Amino acid sequence: MNNQSSPMEQDSASMIPKEFRNLTRRGVWTKETYGVCEGYVQANLAIIPNDCALEFLAFCLRNPQPCPVVDVTEPGSPHPVMMAPEADLRTDLPKYRIYRYGKLKEEVTDITPYWSDDLVSLLLGCSFTFEYLLRAADIPFRHTGAYLSGIRCVPAGRFSGPMVVSGWIFKGKQAVRAIKLTSRYPVAHGAPVHIGDPAAIGIRDIYHPEFWHPPWPITIEPDEVPVFWGCGITPQAVAMEVSLPLMITHAPAHMFITDRLAQELAVL
Amino acid sequence: MNNQSSPMEQDSASMIPKEFRNLTRRGVWTKETYGVCEGYVQANLAIIPNDCALEFLAFCLRNPQPCPVVDVTEPGSPHPVMMAPEADLRTDLPKYRIYRYGKLKEEVTDITPYWSDDLVSLLLGCSFTFEYLLRAADIPFRHTGAYLSGIRCVPAGRFSGPMVVSGWIFKGKQAVRAIKLTSRYPVAHGAPVHIGDPAAIGIRDIYHPEFWHPPWPITIEPDEVPVFWGCGITPQAVAMEVSLPLMITHAPAHMFITDRLAQELAVL
Repeated sequence: MNNQSSPMEQDSASMIPKEFRNLTRRGVWTKETYGVCEGYVQANLAIIPNDCALEFLAFCLRNPQPCPVVDVTEPGSPHPVMMAPEADLRTDLPKYRIYRYGKLKEEVTDITPYWSDDLVSLLLGCSFTFEYLLRAADIPFRHTGAYLSGIRCVPAGRFSGPMVVSGWIFKGKQAVRAIKLTSRYPVAHGAPVHIGDPAAIGIRDIYHPEFWHPPWPITIEPDEVPVFWGCGITPQAVAMEVSLPLMITHAPAHMFITDRLAQELAVL
Repeated sequence: MNNQSSPMEQDSASMIPKEFRNLTRRGVWTKETYGVCEGYVQANLAIIPNDCALEFLAFCLRNPQPCPVVDVTEPGSPHPVMMAPEADLRTDLPKYRIYRYGKLKEEVTDITPYWSDDLVSLLLGCSFTFEYLLRAADIPFRHTGAYLSGIRCVPAGRFSGPMVVSGWIFKGKQAVRAIKLTSRYPVAHGAPVHIGDPAAIGIRDIYHPEFWHPPWPITIEPDEVPVFWGCGITPQAVAMEVSLPLMITHAPAHMFITDRLAQELAVL
């Protein structure tokens, strides 16, 4: 992994969320948010029509490891009152994706033209927060990718499908620390769903992740163990299948930065 | 507190939830559920019309300490798939209350006649589980009652109001243990909302609880500290204010017994 960063990226790491969101609001920052506003919870965004919002929310609540709900707005409100009441979800993410009937139609940096009083926004915990927690605790890890697992999500109405999981490699002792640490943060996918043999949860080939392959080679040493967490790709993949007339999400890696510190939201 | 119990109550403590729910379903058990199926999560029930369900659910998610959502059904389904998929919420609680426009109309032991495809059921964590956890950990405590606090809940749409809190007295060292313990169980109100001076959270008089006074005298020794947790009376009090055409709840202390062990739902 590349530890070099430009001066602007160094600044963005120590920026406060309000300041950073002001950059995205004005269209100044349209890049990815990895490492931005270090320590603050980052979130996936899913905006859907009101008439399926309860169903989709129920799906997320039934599958809290891949889909940790950190906020839900009222229909038509762009303000996530729990996570950042002053933020505007229509402008404060660097990039969005517009889907119609499950098909990607556009990538935009402002969704105001698409907004209506009928839309409900969900914010879901994200693995950038997860990675931050591991780095802050000085737990060495390698990300191996995002996999289609054989674990079935608990369905809710029309929403159902397999769980997508993310794979991470640790030395045994560090795996224990990672499990203890992440268990304290349900907002960042919480405890892992599996440790060890990938086949036991229906992963076809750990070296060939279906959803995301890291830019580095995947290797596992004999003293290392793979650990799998629920992945935020799950709700998006599941929602896509339902083919909603409109769904708006963040563009991959272009997350919403909340006002809440991860530390603040630890359960213990 | 009275540690004596009848043979039937001793049996009910060691019954498995399915067995116990079968008694309530057949109308054999219509009493309170304190101490029933020890170790299993007990839950408050709130059944409301679909058109305000998302709003009420959002209210609960924004106020997880008084209103810990442990399950939500799809409209018309009486089966809480996360907590007890085989249960039927129309018959499996010992006693229910029927409210119309915020007024208590009836207490019944079966709500099948009131059921419609329009109804959504929420299960919310309950202090019986909380008390079980303290007893199982051998932490001595005294319950002082349920208070109107000055803490405002985070509103959601029409749902808003003050937080009701429950008061508990511990020796200092035991208070620390209680805080650590309960923090691990978000399903049972999680960590306390306050420790110490009741006035600091707007409690008028610790000796005169507004919502529930225990049958024993309230006393606080110099080496003891009051600790306050969010109370499950909150969502019910708030929902009452909205004056829904129909709301069905459990009768006080007549809870739903889930299939899930509290231990299973600990976050760490």
